[in-house]
Amino acid sequence: MSNFAVPVGVSNRHLHLSETDLRTLFGSAAALTYKKPLSQEGQFVSEETVTLAGPKGSMTVRVLGPARPQTQVEVTLTDAYKLGIAPPVRDSGDLDGSAGGELIGPAGRVVLTEGVIVVHRHIHVRTEDALRKGVKDRDRVTVRVDTERGGVFTDVLVRVDPSFNLEFHIDTDESNAFALKNGDVAEVILN
Amino acid sequence: MSNFAVPVGVSNRHLHLSETDLRTLFGSAAALTYKKPLSQEGQFVSEETVTLAGPKGSMTVRVLGPARPQTQVEVTLTDAYKLGIAPPVRDSGDLDGSAGGELIGPAGRVVLTEGVIVVHRHIHVRTEDALRKGVKDRDRVTVRVDTERGGVFTDVLVRVDPSFNLEFHIDTDESNAFALKNGDVAEVILN
Repeated sequence: MSNFAVPVGVSNRHLHLSETDLRTLFGSAAALTYKKPLSQEGQFVSEETVTLAGPKGSMTVRVLGPARPQTQVEVTLTDAYKLGIAPPVRDSGDLDGSAGGELIGPAGRVVLTEGVIVVHRHIHVRTEDALRKGVKDRDRVTVRVDTERGGVFTDVLVRVDPSFNLEFHIDTDESNAFALKNGDVAEVILN
Repeated sequence: MSNFAVPVGVSNRHLHLSETDLRTLFGSAAALTYKKPLSQEGQFVSEETVTLAGPKGSMTVRVLGPARPQTQVEVTLTDAYKLGIAPPVRDSGDLDGSAGGELIGPAGRVVLTEGVIVVHRHIHVRTEDALRKGVKDRDRVTVRVDTERGGVFTDVLVRVDPSFNLEFHIDTDESNAFALKNGDVAEVILN
């Protein structure tokens, strides 16, 4: 197996809403308004934002579409300190016992008892690329970054799906710590 | 040479003021008010804060003492995006051509044409420890972190001085990216 290059995709804080929470926050006839596509097929940035409030502060959070079975809020640890909450670092979808928070929209409020996480760094790989590159779903790999604040991310989760586009997903704490920008290239180290 | 452990010291944004800028911001008879000591001898947190303003936003920044020959403002890249400025990643004291910003205090304002930087990660080592540990001033070393968001920082500057206490200095972007807290232990990799 050879090392391979992967484009960096930087995620700012955002959330995915359930249909129920979408209606509570934006009204019973609400639907998300498409703004622009995301790099992963079918995913999009909506025009909608909500306020996320914690014990120590609040901030505006962008809603991504489409709706999901369960509301998931993805923040950075920098955000978490400002909000006064302590979300765990989790893989997407693993929300049991995660942090809570209050969502405030134009039509109503939702009190989440769980659903707020810091997403663990991960790589999206299309199935046909995974075979060729020698990785499989749920592998944990190492990614090297060669910037003026360079280094290595260990324990990076690999997710493989026929619809995925190759991308290394990190949050803004991780991109800023390594002076990385959206579209920069990192290297997956397999040997 | 053996690897060795180093305690992590996390820096939030802060600034060091020149005597001239201190008087402009806080009044002609102003002196910094000691609040608590920092880990490095003679350095302290003051009670004073100023507002740092950029084209896109402003934020409160803590003043550290004592005064220095030139004002130096240390922000994170997360802060920089909010302020709308683009500070370079620099070693402390290397301010030529760095970013500007406006400081606003209770008695006046200072417009900095330079002095705002993101400080490059570094390790303070006491001279007697440096000899024993096999590092010297201005070495560049690698530091490994074993957390749930683990990894490696490369190109870490070593600073050696008889007054220094052993500490690995990173900013909040770097600590949050690796889920590190003040006082956690990292490992300097020499072989």
